[in-house]
Amino acid sequence: MSVTAPAGFVAAGVTAGLKKSGGLDLAIVANRGPLANAATVFTSNRCKANPIIWSQQVMADGRVSAIVLNSGGANCYTGTIGFQTTHATAEAVAEQLDVSAGDVLVCSTGLIGEQLDLVKLTAGVFDAGLALKDDDAASAAAGLAAAQAIMTTDTRPKQATQVSPAGWTIGGMAKGAGMLAPGLATMLVVITTDAVLSSAQLDTALREATRVTFDRLDSDGCMSTNDTVSLLASGASGVDADPDEFAGALTALCRDLTLQLQGDAEGASHDVAIIVRNAAAETEAVTVARAVSRSNLFKAAIYGNDPNWGRVLAAVGTISEADAAFDPYGIDVAINGIQVCTAGEPDEPRELVDLTPRAVSVVIDLHAGTAGATIWTNDLTHDYVEENSAYSS
Amino acid sequence: MSVTAPAGFVAAGVTAGLKKSGGLDLAIVANRGPLANAATVFTSNRCKANPIIWSQQVMADGRVSAIVLNSGGANCYTGTIGFQTTHATAEAVAEQLDVSAGDVLVCSTGLIGEQLDLVKLTAGVFDAGLALKDDDAASAAAGLAAAQAIMTTDTRPKQATQVSPAGWTIGGMAKGAGMLAPGLATMLVVITTDAVLSSAQLDTALREATRVTFDRLDSDGCMSTNDTVSLLASGASGVDADPDEFAGALTALCRDLTLQLQGDAEGASHDVAIIVRNAAAETEAVTVARAVSRSNLFKAAIYGNDPNWGRVLAAVGTISEADAAFDPYGIDVAINGIQVCTAGEPDEPRELVDLTPRAVSVVIDLHAGTAGATIWTNDLTHDYVEENSAYSS
Repeated sequence: MSVTAPAGFVAAGVTAGLKKSGGLDLAIVANRGPLANAATVFTSNRCKANPIIWSQQVMADGRVSAIVLNSGGANCYTGTIGFQTTHATAEAVAEQLDVSAGDVLVCSTGLIGEQLDLVKLTAGVFDAGLALKDDDAASAAAGLAAAQAIMTTDTRPKQATQVSPAGWTIGGMAKGAGMLAPGLATMLVVITTDAVLSSAQLDTALREATRVTFDRLDSDGCMSTNDTVSLLASGASGVDADPDEFAGALTALCRDLTLQLQGDAEGASHDVAIIVRNAAAETEAVTVARAVSRSNLFKAAIYGNDPNWGRVLAAVGTISEADAAFDPYGIDVAINGIQVCTAGEPDEPRELVDLTPRAVSVVIDLHAGTAGATIWTNDLTHDYVEENSAYSS
Repeated sequence: MSVTAPAGFVAAGVTAGLKKSGGLDLAIVANRGPLANAATVFTSNRCKANPIIWSQQVMADGRVSAIVLNSGGANCYTGTIGFQTTHATAEAVAEQLDVSAGDVLVCSTGLIGEQLDLVKLTAGVFDAGLALKDDDAASAAAGLAAAQAIMTTDTRPKQATQVSPAGWTIGGMAKGAGMLAPGLATMLVVITTDAVLSSAQLDTALREATRVTFDRLDSDGCMSTNDTVSLLASGASGVDADPDEFAGALTALCRDLTLQLQGDAEGASHDVAIIVRNAAAETEAVTVARAVSRSNLFKAAIYGNDPNWGRVLAAVGTISEADAAFDPYGIDVAINGIQVCTAGEPDEPRELVDLTPRAVSVVIDLHAGTAGATIWTNDLTHDYVEENSAYSS
């Protein structure tokens, strides 16, 4: 169960013919209420896709009745025609579900700079609308079909659920395997809940959750133009959720989906946690960890099972003093539990490090304070190069 | 001819046994005067290698009699012992050449976090010292041996010369194939001249030249801990160089070496010029071009001969408004002369772009001003991953 786990939600995934592969490529998640509260976080990329521009307008009143998502095309850098396609898609959903188009979020993912086929899109919306009227539209199978329909280079759907003893539930689905380096938001993620919460409460909880989960995933340093995380509340449980408990459960769910995204990142053979400890501030810990996560040399070494810790420190050293306080010669580095560097000098032999497991931890102790942060990244592999050298062709 | 082209310089390259391959791995370039003026630019990485820490002290008085360079080890993150190794190397050179150790620059390149073998180093310095006393120590062959001795993963030596009708000459050699993303300086570069110029004049000319050449090379986004560009003047021509003419020739020579470094970057199959036009300021053009040069998705697409211009704009969009002024929907993109995007919408079909040549140009017109800049980068290839996944092992 994922987005259909909370009461009040139905979902569908259909084949609209947008993907060359012929698989499921269009999903709708609809909120049957009684509430239609929502919060979203969008990409901070200035090159925002048409669905983002549309959805930002939808969010002006914090009300969302449904969200439609397609793979097979990002509808980004497609100009006025592309925006009209997004608008027409929302109108088609509104007509099928008898809601206002102004309450329909649109998400698209795929190649940038190509027009989507509106005829196929609207036919897909019609099929999905029919499926949503089906008895099993609230089933786990329906949620799974929606999660499958938003996949691009993902090899498996990503779903997660959190159930509160208080009587409410959160469900979520996500897609994303490349261009995985969000700024404020990431990929396409739809989260549903039947808790009773206002749009403002949802917004607070969602921003806090994404800040420490999706925002800390930096698989390949590339920020998408289409990233959207949406949180829809139906209130169908009738339970007023404790905001703190809800925020905790939401963060756990987002963390679950984040690690699923990391585990399925394009071509990756290692899931790497860059853990910075004893920084002067959390933001500085994030800055240092992100610099390491963006070092191609470090990432290629991890692929080769090579504990080349000099590349960790060379990346750390690129951070200016204004951005992070630390003594560059007072840093410790441990890789998979082996302390290879203490106070800027070699410690345990690098040969002791076992990098054969998929999970890798790199702990960087800055000795500059008490704050910390983790960035999740992946290695740089032949498969990553292969997948991304032949994406549009 | 390279560093030995200007009068007053001798060079040697010998095998000290530091490289596993058994090739040339230690070079000395000595200035026989009459002047010993010099300027240097060092890496802006805060994790500076021991040779950088030493050489910064040497430069306090702007006097340099000789420079010793080794491959086979970076002598970075090697602590007090590593610094003593650098100091002892300078003392050995001083003894061989009968100069002050305080006038000997030291450069090292190779793996970080391993001690250099001082016995091998000093034996190598002894051999090089003998070679420098040879009659042909000022020959082109001697310069070539020095250029070969500083190679690491380079496949060929890099040399360049500029000759002024006024009667002075500049020669240069460079090494660098990975960790190619300098901040203020880059790789190991030694430039010699027989022009009569003060250390202050050399410093001004060198900073202006590196700013628009080595600093604009960003092959893999990784900044080294050991980068040093040195400019030594012997004054042996007896000609007072016009500072503007000298700066122009020096910039041309640095540009020549920069393009040689790009052309030999690890595993690269394309040399890509990211040309940003009509930016509000030169710094903003550099920022935009650098963001594109660091997009792994863009670089992998170029490797695959895929003109995926959406990845160019997605990278441009990551730049904040504070860092560069532009309308994200008003940008034009041309790849190898084909205008694939005009004002944020598809223009000529991407299929018209021919990416089979090694040289690629990506022109990004921001329509935000009149400034421009070029960043030189490379594609992301299987060979890059291969070379860098098995470097220390």
